[in-house]
Amino acid sequence: MIDTPDLVDQYCHGVLRTELGLGTFEAHLGAHLGGAAVLPAPGTTFFDTQTGFAVRRWCPPLLGLEPHCPPARYLARRRELGAAEAGRRLLRASGISTYLVDTGLPGDLTPPAELGAAGAAEAHEIVRLERLAEQVAGTSGTVEAFLAHLAEAVHGAAAGAVAFASAASASASAPEPPGPGEVRGAAGRWLAARPVGGRLSDPVLLRHLLWIAVTAGRPLQLHTEDPTALNGFAAATAGLGTDLVLLHRYPHHRAAAHLTGLHPHVYADLGPVLAHTGARAAAVLAEVLERAPFGKLLFSSGAQGLPELHVVAASAFRSALVRVLGEWVMDGAWTRTDAQRVATMIAADNAKRVYRLAGSR
Amino acid sequence: MIDTPDLVDQYCHGVLRTELGLGTFEAHLGAHLGGAAVLPAPGTTFFDTQTGFAVRRWCPPLLGLEPHCPPARYLARRRELGAAEAGRRLLRASGISTYLVDTGLPGDLTPPAELGAAGAAEAHEIVRLERLAEQVAGTSGTVEAFLAHLAEAVHGAAAGAVAFASAASASASAPEPPGPGEVRGAAGRWLAARPVGGRLSDPVLLRHLLWIAVTAGRPLQLHTEDPTALNGFAAATAGLGTDLVLLHRYPHHRAAAHLTGLHPHVYADLGPVLAHTGARAAAVLAEVLERAPFGKLLFSSGAQGLPELHVVAASAFRSALVRVLGEWVMDGAWTRTDAQRVATMIAADNAKRVYRLAGSR
Amino acid sequence: MIDTPDLVDQYCHGVLRTELGLGTFEAHLGAHLGGAAVLPAPGTTFFDTQTGFAVRRWCPPLLGLEPHCPPARYLARRRELGAAEAGRRLLRASGISTYLVDTGLPGDLTPPAELGAAGAAEAHEIVRLERLAEQVAGTSGTVEAFLAHLAEAVHGAAAGAVAFASAASASASAPEPPGPGEVRGAAGRWLAARPVGGRLSDPVLLRHLLWIAVTAGRPLQLHTEDPTALNGFAAATAGLGTDLVLLHRYPHHRAAAHLTGLHPHVYADLGPVLAHTGARAAAVLAEVLERAPFGKLLFSSGAQGLPELHVVAASAFRSALVRVLGEWVMDGAWTRTDAQRVATMIAADNAKRVYRLAGSR
Repeated sequence: MIDTPDLVDQYCHGVLRTELGLGTFEAHLGAHLGGAAVLPAPGTTFFDTQTGFAVRRWCPPLLGLEPHCPPARYLARRRELGAAEAGRRLLRASGISTYLVDTGLPGDLTPPAELGAAGAAEAHEIVRLERLAEQVAGTSGTVEAFLAHLAEAVHGAAAGAVAFASAASASASAPEPPGPGEVRGAAGRWLAARPVGGRLSDPVLLRHLLWIAVTAGRPLQLHTEDPTALNGFAAATAGLGTDLVLLHRYPHHRAAAHLTGLHPHVYADLGPVLAHTGARAAAVLAEVLERAPFGKLLFSSGAQGLPELHVVAASAFRSALVRVLGEWVMDGAWTRTDAQRVATMIAADNAKRVYRLAGSR
Repeated sequence: MIDTPDLVDQYCHGVLRTELGLGTFEAHLGAHLGGAAVLPAPGTTFFDTQTGFAVRRWCPPLLGLEPHCPPARYLARRRELGAAEAGRRLLRASGISTYLVDTGLPGDLTPPAELGAAGAAEAHEIVRLERLAEQVAGTSGTVEAFLAHLAEAVHGAAAGAVAFASAASASASAPEPPGPGEVRGAAGRWLAARPVGGRLSDPVLLRHLLWIAVTAGRPLQLHTEDPTALNGFAAATAGLGTDLVLLHRYPHHRAAAHLTGLHPHVYADLGPVLAHTGARAAAVLAEVLERAPFGKLLFSSGAQGLPELHVVAASAFRSALVRVLGEWVMDGAWTRTDAQRVATMIAADNAKRVYRLAGSR
Repeated sequence: MIDTPDLVDQYCHGVLRTELGLGTFEAHLGAHLGGAAVLPAPGTTFFDTQTGFAVRRWCPPLLGLEPHCPPARYLARRRELGAAEAGRRLLRASGISTYLVDTGLPGDLTPPAELGAAGAAEAHEIVRLERLAEQVAGTSGTVEAFLAHLAEAVHGAAAGAVAFASAASASASAPEPPGPGEVRGAAGRWLAARPVGGRLSDPVLLRHLLWIAVTAGRPLQLHTEDPTALNGFAAATAGLGTDLVLLHRYPHHRAAAHLTGLHPHVYADLGPVLAHTGARAAAVLAEVLERAPFGKLLFSSGAQGLPELHVVAASAFRSALVRVLGEWVMDGAWTRTDAQRVATMIAADNAKRVYRLAGSR
């Protein structure tokens, strides 16, 4: 059968260190909007979602319980072990051997080294461009200093980071970098008005930031609502030597996969789409495999806060690959050799090539 | 097996009282644009659609014929029984125990009480906001009177109606209510220009109407082409205590289901999507179940004119639920208990909670 | 079982006459943007796509090799036979009995008669409107002469062509034809500025061209990114007697199929969507069959350059039809008779009716 012993999680976050009750755990099963967890409607719970059911399917056995046990029982067992030990057991059972960790989220999440140690895996940092710019703003007195330090900071970060990430994709849809005067004006206004800890959302500065990152020699990961909005930016950055990786959002996974076939330097993430569709992961994976060249797809979990989400993403992905590719082999549409080769590409090899992961198995 | 003895049809219309020939029956199998039935192309028939095949699959046995009998034979039998008796047999076999009926369509369709009596079911009225405003316009002499009566009429209707419905979703995409001067200007222009029986399509008045309805304490059902256009309105109405129910249009069912996970007060309808996809209903249902919290989905038929469409929607829904959830149980992805619970939620319990249906079983 | 001995390929191009190496063959497996082949990313190949795997599945046996043999071995055998003989064997095994050939692509592709002779099939020309206008521009001295010759050329071409095709769909989304002054102005600017062999991309002239074509009495095929953008044009051309055929682009096949149910004169192509999804062709076909009236769907290959692509499209389509319709018959959702009838409609009969193909079987 098709086998993927080695998974590179090309986009995820750290996990919470604190003990979690039912409510705090549940909040991480739902969506987040603008950094805040969405609440369940009165009379409903986010345990009643594909994500909730998938956690109950895959995780209890890793902590010594039967699959699908009630959430309260699972959380009691989790607290009994302690968050750290439960996290270790879960992450080590996930099959993920390398984590690429976006450290740009707020909250007390484990940094890459700690996540790697817990999971007995390699870990590398993905630098979130907006956070970097906000840090630079906090230590730069003038517009000129800010803009000079910004470019330095991005190029400096490229030495230690495996990739850059940004949520600025809507702002990036203009295919040209902004002019110097435009950038200076936007920087002046933002620096003058921003409160302490203020977030960067100025579209001109975000666009400027993306174009700096394009010159920094690391793959650039873009959170994107509708990937077709990035077509112009993709065309404008072709041939510059920097790969773009679409962190595509449901339900636009087919459009994202399709886009990877139109630009040599555009790749697509598939993990988060699979991670939250539970029993439907195989169906969604099959859609992603329709039009993307198989060398352009990268596994990831997109997990945030709960090691259970890393486990669910990895389990759903592997189970979906076996089912989808296995069926195509049975039908005579693919050979077993090709299926195994494609599985390994998506699970790990494409990521190793794109991120030039040294020391990879 | 998974069982749903009790269906709440959370959005439908009444049925025709007249006897129907092949052509008039066929016209109700195709789409309607702007209130008028779309014609089939020369050399084609709307019996050759998933809807037509589904009617031939599910309905003839309820009138004592073999499944898939020719349309002419089915219609002959229907006329032999008479439209009223055929309607009774069809509706009573549908398994629908409560109908929520939008009375805002033109034509001689049975009102809620008559539909309920024919189907031996409860029935409640959904008030179409545009029709209410047009009635108020017909009896108000001045702009001031119109606007005062409009607010009174909406709040008055809330006492007897189970919900409001509107097709104004495109106009509603501006997240703010229009200002009083803007509303008065629009009302003046519309009242001056409208012919007798003229329809309300002024975007400012439609937006005003939606915001009145949001304060009236009943769920607001929104016909929507692309549900992502409603994101702003959903964000603006969060926390006001009024639920929004997306009557989503094919092929945007995944986007609508996804949106229900982003806002606590947003729900999605799934019936009309399933009702017209026939042999594909299970596949479409499975897509809707990918990202929506299971507490946010509501069965409905969207049926209009033909009791056959209530039957097809209910049959397709139940058959799809059994197939989709049954497969997930077989795979070990869900437990049988969870599957049965989710089936009951979508079939009836979510609607009972959202619409506060008293006397529900 | 369901059988489709007779396929009308309602939209394709000719094939290359030259011998092909691995690289030139591979370039035709990927996408084309603006007439140029997209390159594969470093470290990847377009043989690792559904299209590549489908070519390896279906084509080697037609040249006496085992399915899924390595690309280099297949191409060696192809050169051994010669491009012409390999093309003959492939096309004659495709089951396509009529080709409608868009002759508007650059490059040395076989014209319709030569494609038909190679495939032992009928062949008819589809005239690309933009190419026609560019030819007229090259031989017209003045704006007045150009506009007069343009209308003559379109109506003249209608005598010999089976249909018109255009990629002007975005420009066409304005539902009204441009006014005469607007057209004259645009023609003057374009004629003055255009280099020798310059392409027509002026939106006013493209719109003018579409509206001329609408009066020429032949079906009009429209390449379209997002078919919903054509809704206004479809509404404006209803009742004029000219059919519109959406050459719809992935992943918008569901929206295109849906649109065919809203306008009597709108049809949708399904071949290119299936031709490049390989092992997923049945799943994609099933989606197209959800909402389109079955009399509105037309098989095509969209093949260009490689006869292998005609073969893959035809094989994928037939295999998908057997699987999808066969499953529905097994489930009792459709009768076998209906399934066979719908298969024949989509494979050939709808195209024969729409294009009034004389001498069709």
